[in-house]
Amino acid sequence: LTATHAQAEVRNEPIKVIEPYVSESPEKVELGKQLFFDPRLSMSGIISCNTCHNLSYSGTDNLKTSIGHKWQAGPVNSPTVFNSSLQIAQFWDGRALDLKEQAAGPIAANVEMAMPHTLAVDVIQSIPGYRSQVEAVYGTNQVTLDHITDAIAEFEKTLVTPNAPFDRWLQGDDNAITEQQLAGYQLFKQAGCVACHYGEALGGKSFMKMGLVQPYESDSPSQGRYDVTGKEIDRFMFKVPTLRNVAITYPYFHDGAANTLEEATQIMGQLQLGRNFTKDELANLVAFMESLTGERPKISLPLLPPSGENTPRPNPFQ
Amino acid sequence: LTATHAQAEVRNEPIKVIEPYVSESPEKVELGKQLFFDPRLSMSGIISCNTCHNLSYSGTDNLKTSIGHKWQAGPVNSPTVFNSSLQIAQFWDGRALDLKEQAAGPIAANVEMAMPHTLAVDVIQSIPGYRSQVEAVYGTNQVTLDHITDAIAEFEKTLVTPNAPFDRWLQGDDNAITEQQLAGYQLFKQAGCVACHYGEALGGKSFMKMGLVQPYESDSPSQGRYDVTGKEIDRFMFKVPTLRNVAITYPYFHDGAANTLEEATQIMGQLQLGRNFTKDELANLVAFMESLTGERPKISLPLLPPSGENTPRPNPFQ
Ligand code: HEC
Ligand code: HEC
Ligand code: HEC
Ligand code: HEC
Ligand SMILES: [Ca+2]
Ligand SMILES: [Ca+2]
Ligand SMILES: [Ca+2]
Ligand SMILES: [Mg+2]
Repeated sequence: LTATHAQAEVRNEPIKVIEPYVSESPEKVELGKQLFFDPRLSMSGIISCNTCHNLSYSGTDNLKTSIGHKWQAGPVNSPTVFNSSLQIAQFWDGRALDLKEQAAGPIAANVEMAMPHTLAVDVIQSIPGYRSQVEAVYGTNQVTLDHITDAIAEFEKTLVTPNAPFDRWLQGDDNAITEQQLAGYQLFKQAGCVACHYGEALGGKSFMKMGLVQPYESDSPSQGRYDVTGKEIDRFMFKVPTLRNVAITYPYFHDGAANTLEEATQIMGQLQLGRNFTKDELANLVAFMESLTGERPKISLPLLPPSGENTPRPNPFQ
Repeated sequence: LTATHAQAEVRNEPIKVIEPYVSESPEKVELGKQLFFDPRLSMSGIISCNTCHNLSYSGTDNLKTSIGHKWQAGPVNSPTVFNSSLQIAQFWDGRALDLKEQAAGPIAANVEMAMPHTLAVDVIQSIPGYRSQVEAVYGTNQVTLDHITDAIAEFEKTLVTPNAPFDRWLQGDDNAITEQQLAGYQLFKQAGCVACHYGEALGGKSFMKMGLVQPYESDSPSQGRYDVTGKEIDRFMFKVPTLRNVAITYPYFHDGAANTLEEATQIMGQLQLGRNFTKDELANLVAFMESLTGERPKISLPLLPPSGENTPRPNPFQ
């Protein structure tokens, strides 16, 4: 089979196959990976991006809402970084347009890493092994925040999870999913889930109101895109989350209030579609979504470059 | 060169070359690695062994004293897990005889992972991918604490750091260390450091009094082995720490009170040997210890098995 031939056989569905990402700059990816795992980007010295987006597991922390600097609980659930590059915007309210813009947020956020950007840059600048990598990738040894976030973003683009059973089914392998999963997929389309959860990521392409048919009750202060635009029409509009790997990104919704996929699905049916699924229908939908767990990237643990003599030390109680 | 021939050329010194560890059970190592990285062994769901013994960096958290469950500060500095298998006992006060016995400690310790052992076992037992690995390695699918700690210990044995410049010098390569480092090593022997810091790990073989010649003043509640034996003679007796990778395991001493290697060395000279080193002597000793940074193991990030339906969920505020 040639590649073109294989392509031609992909089923014509509203959900698309995930393609692996091939970076043009493996050095940038490596630098970004080191930064993603480096707790020296946090004031405490113990929180890295990987703390809340655990790449060993689901790309999230699997908590209701994240725990950050000084054990503060944040206002919303941590979305997975797996396949986050396939979205039109970042954060539940879409306030960052891309991964690069996004990465600056958590470093400085007081409930996350609590690290002023100037100090983050000073720390990276003071580490000889980072200086030389920045020089190799960006042609200067004066580290900026832009270098840090650009490299992290490039690494994150590699975090796609291709080859889920459902992808193999899309590519023509009838045996890749069970009959129950296929029935679930048919219901997923027929009931209208696919109106919001479509494309490679089954989501991430639009903002939709949470509580379209019936209002959603939440203890979270977040009002979705309204917090960004201040427009009434945007109240409770959230970015439709990806359903890729959703079986392991529990708990669910922006407030992390739904504990199981079954519960989340039932709520979706009622609040977004005005429909009460039977137990069997729920089971089928859940089975379908379980076929969306892809191959997590195989990552070698980065060996972080040693601090220099003048590297500012962390301060957990600052 | 045959292996025996190469062996014969190793210099006859009180410090020995580190040998790589070859496990007879790679499956056990893999299981132990997963557990080492798994935050589900903590009550909060976000603290793993790797949080305080970061294998991307120094095998420690590089904090004065560790931060654990609910951001509590522990009483002592986190020692590196690199080369910890080369020691006669574990913990600063030696209260665990080996790595297996040690690993049970932090899981349940209230200031570390705060996870009752029964709950830790329940969590692992409830995860299908762990059950099958335990079955493959131990021949039973009834998980016990012993399986968990045994597997972690086997993984930790692989965490040796061979091939430091000083090892290459020991093996006959005259150019592996600088003249300053050689001068530092000569002083290290001549001044008497080697009386306590000897063997493969340059330490880990004995308990010695901290403050032999002159008392050590500390804000730490730890009284060393006295806390274990209650015998007066053991007051302030601490396990001599390894100096392998000491350049990156700052800050120093059981209370983490010395920030730099130079400071720690000066204190060692005064308190253990009654000797005030000159600036040059200090620089040489530090340069020597910098030659002890070995090759950290290349580890692939484990992909943790998904939780099961009945896996108890974490509770960060418990
Ligand atoms: C203390 C926990 C925590 C840390 C540390 C953290 N994040 Fe996040 N991350 C979150 C939470 C919570 C959100 C959702 C915030 C929101 O939508 O308002 C988020 C959102 C994101 C998103 C958007 C995903 C999406 O689908 O919208 C990306 C990408 C991301 N984080 C990457 C990172 C990177 C890179 C770092 C390190 C520089 C990092 N995070 C550090 C908790 C954390
Ligand atoms: C009108 C748009 C829309 C429709 C229709 C819709 N969803 Fe959603 N879905 C969303 C939005 C928006 C969210 C995020 C809501 C929030 O977190 O507050 C979401 C969240 C989810 C989540 C939780 C994902 C996570 O990681 O937290 C699941 C699961 C889900 N939807 C499944 C479904 C299923 C199954 C259907 C059909 C029964 C469906 N959705 C129909 C817009 C929609
Ligand atoms: C919250 C921080 C924290 C966590 C989590 C943690 N440790 Fe530790 N570890 C420490 C501290 C602090 C010490 C020193 C305690 C003492 O000596 O009394 C230590 C000591 C050790 C030692 C002894 C090293 C030596 O040279 O004496 C080993 C081995 C070790 N830990 C392995 C582990 C393993 C395995 C886990 C997970 C099951 C783990 N640690 C979890 C902080 C932590
Ligand atoms: C009589 C025994 C003894 C002698 C001699 C001795 N040490 Fe130590 N060394 C120890 C003990 C015990 C500790 C741990 C003390 C503590 O943490 O409270 C230690 C700790 C250290 C540390 C800190 C290691 C760490 O990871 O925290 C360094 C560095 C060190 N010694 C270097 C030296 C040097 C250099 C000399 C010679 C100038 C020397 N030592 C002489 C027993 C000794
Ligand atoms: Ca979630
Ligand atoms: Ca034992
Ligand atoms: Ca230390
Ligand atoms: Mg942008």
